[in-house]
Amino acid sequence: MSRKASLSGFHEWLPAERLVEQHVLDTLRRTFELHGFAGIETRAVETLGQLLRKGEVDKEVYAVSRLAEDEEVAAGRREPKDPADPKRLALHFDLTVPFARYVVENAGHLAFPFRRYQMQKVWRGERPQEGRAREFTQADIDVVGDGALSPRYDADVALVMAEALGALPIGDFLIRVNNRKLAEGFYRGIGLEDTAGVLRSIDKLEKVGPEEVARLLQEEVGASPEQAAQALALADIRTSDTSFVERVRALGVTHELLEEGLTELADVVATLHRRAPGRAVADLSIARGLDYYTGTVYETVLVGHEQLGSICSGGRYDALASKGNRVFPGVGLSIGVTRLVMRMLSQQMAVASRSVPTAVYVALTADEDWSEAQDVAALLRERGIPAEVAVSAEKFGRQIKYADRRGIPFVWFMGRDDAGARVHEVKDIRSGEQHAADPADWTPPAEDLLPQVARAQD
Amino acid sequence: MSRKASLSGFHEWLPAERLVEQHVLDTLRRTFELHGFAGIETRAVETLGQLLRKGEVDKEVYAVSRLAEDEEVAAGRREPKDPADPKRLALHFDLTVPFARYVVENAGHLAFPFRRYQMQKVWRGERPQEGRAREFTQADIDVVGDGALSPRYDADVALVMAEALGALPIGDFLIRVNNRKLAEGFYRGIGLEDTAGVLRSIDKLEKVGPEEVARLLQEEVGASPEQAAQALALADIRTSDTSFVERVRALGVTHELLEEGLTELADVVATLHRRAPGRAVADLSIARGLDYYTGTVYETVLVGHEQLGSICSGGRYDALASKGNRVFPGVGLSIGVTRLVMRMLSQQMAVASRSVPTAVYVALTADEDWSEAQDVAALLRERGIPAEVAVSAEKFGRQIKYADRRGIPFVWFMGRDDAGARVHEVKDIRSGEQHAADPADWTPPAEDLLPQVARAQD
Repeated sequence: MSRKASLSGFHEWLPAERLVEQHVLDTLRRTFELHGFAGIETRAVETLGQLLRKGEVDKEVYAVSRLAEDEEVAAGRREPKDPADPKRLALHFDLTVPFARYVVENAGHLAFPFRRYQMQKVWRGERPQEGRAREFTQADIDVVGDGALSPRYDADVALVMAEALGALPIGDFLIRVNNRKLAEGFYRGIGLEDTAGVLRSIDKLEKVGPEEVARLLQEEVGASPEQAAQALALADIRTSDTSFVERVRALGVTHELLEEGLTELADVVATLHRRAPGRAVADLSIARGLDYYTGTVYETVLVGHEQLGSICSGGRYDALASKGNRVFPGVGLSIGVTRLVMRMLSQQMAVASRSVPTAVYVALTADEDWSEAQDVAALLRERGIPAEVAVSAEKFGRQIKYADRRGIPFVWFMGRDDAGARVHEVKDIRSGEQHAADPADWTPPAEDLLPQVARAQD
Repeated sequence: MSRKASLSGFHEWLPAERLVEQHVLDTLRRTFELHGFAGIETRAVETLGQLLRKGEVDKEVYAVSRLAEDEEVAAGRREPKDPADPKRLALHFDLTVPFARYVVENAGHLAFPFRRYQMQKVWRGERPQEGRAREFTQADIDVVGDGALSPRYDADVALVMAEALGALPIGDFLIRVNNRKLAEGFYRGIGLEDTAGVLRSIDKLEKVGPEEVARLLQEEVGASPEQAAQALALADIRTSDTSFVERVRALGVTHELLEEGLTELADVVATLHRRAPGRAVADLSIARGLDYYTGTVYETVLVGHEQLGSICSGGRYDALASKGNRVFPGVGLSIGVTRLVMRMLSQQMAVASRSVPTAVYVALTADEDWSEAQDVAALLRERGIPAEVAVSAEKFGRQIKYADRRGIPFVWFMGRDDAGARVHEVKDIRSGEQHAADPADWTPPAEDLLPQVARAQD
């Protein structure tokens, strides 16, 4: 992590770091599959028309073009294309927009409600800052229905993510839940009709503080000081149970949409409070910048690392995907895997027990033993023990050093007894202990079989 | 597979198809790790300077640019860039060139010989044809040394790939091995100095036949009819053991480089013949188009699907990566995962036993049982059994249909006995068999636990 990326914003991990990332991805996948989510991948490129459909112009998009075509344009042999041509190709900047397209295209082949997970790289041409990569991996789950989708899924997906994050060596986290209808209904109830504008200002609350947001609300949305104060009073409400409902009612605002949002959020928070106590709160300051959310919205902070921003965000979208009159409402959450792994590595929250999968390094006493040593390794691998074979009969000290540099715990020796018969011994190079072993039945302790990724000691 | 890609050359799988691809990737990863290869990923983008360093101009490269910049250029507010600017970004078209850069950049942090696997998407802006995707996944293994690398690794990597491919439900395959030194030494020995030109012509042998290649050799490389005949006689040699050596000698050509190549190839083929009988042959027609190979080269055909082209190719490269005077010779092989999976799916060589991970669908008798049903599912998941819970107490027929459409084998029912106590039953919806079960200890048969991907019946 002290290494500098050779291209700013494009991070690459060393093998031991990649093991931490792989552990995160494997753990997430395992949890998602235990909950019945099917894995899919979508292509890395979308048309600009698709990507910008929901007005996501604030995302810095990477366009893609065939080099041969660019050269023909530069040479005057081809007409330049409009850079904003909706048919132009660009790299996806999240997995939700591509998933919505996938659902619409494949609706006839999918069973709804469709539960899917998707773990892929995405790209944004942003200015790189700490925690802002230009290439990063997201891990998403979504449930999408055909026509309608039970509100129970709003709690379900958050519970799955709570379980997934809880299985990672990252310590405490808190899922903060709000509801767009609640917020929009409240704003309308106090006479602010530009609800998107209010949300944009409220979204800046943690960054700039309440006074600045009050000023923004008055200057940019035309709120009165009283309206600004009420919007801020709403955003100040945060409870771990459904008591937020009373606190909202105490503000004395009424609106049909507000009622709907209160009911929905109370249902979600009650379920989370019961099934994942301490993992979630109702937090009415959560806005989520994205236009396509229509109900529940989520953000997640890593406790003690709040300035990192949200590590797992999402929401309910009732109209992101549609095909003629047919709509596919969905709800989902997305983990920023790269952001999380960068933090895990830079803070040494988790470490891999070695840098290679190998558990046993089979040493060579004589060069011509190589094939027999491969037989030993093959016997070990048959029982799931990763093994490598030396390629030449160097001094044992050098062969042990090969294992030591990689953190390989065991070195296997093939010798001869006084009668000239083959004898096998295995050495734990950490303790120096060495004893006779049979390649057909020796096994290492379970914790040495594969590289372990664990929370580092505090 | 009958679906048409919405962007030509960019394939996306349905969930059941993705399970086949995932099975391929999991199997490869497992084999690579058992052999001590460490997984890494490199960024999707490289600079054009890196990508085109080895003269790979025949690959159609996708350039990447920030849309915002393109728009400024179009509006005349920014100078257009040279499309061939070596600092320009582009998507990688293979994993070998990026890996070479990674090794050079991180040499101080890696232990050599460095064994790594890498499974990622790559992109080529080619005209899509059957089997030629514009976005596809490659699975590579390479071993790279610091200064020198034992020739034993040339056999080692081929054996690992033979084991990996042998673990896939794809039937027979054959790794065809040749050696650049052997071929180049032979061509020089018969007086043909433009060895790259000869290789380019020989590379077309399977496509256009020997007569056309003879014509090409004479027209494009300036060979005499006798020289062309000798080059073709070499390419005609194919043996499963080291007897190719005698057959080459019988052609009466001598050259120092030829001798070196014969020795190297004989060593590799002898090892493969002994340790993976029937999986590999010496095939002196194998040329490999890429410039960077310097010794052993490999291609692999799927028996009965030869027209698909090579599914696993690679070779030894002694000079791809260097840093000042320090060189990092390597040898590796790359599986064309997408090409292979497309064939597996289109020929129905393998099928997934269901389209979702879920083994048990917990039905609801009453809406208010949802949380208790989640407790049942949680108990199952604790034992590694993927489970989903219904969100509403629809008619049992509809709930069973939900499971049936997805291929979920078991439906769990929560009822009450006459005394009002909770009773659990589980139904195998394939046989209709239903019996009492305890959520704390019931387990499905091993073959129903997770989706199975198996070779389809012939």
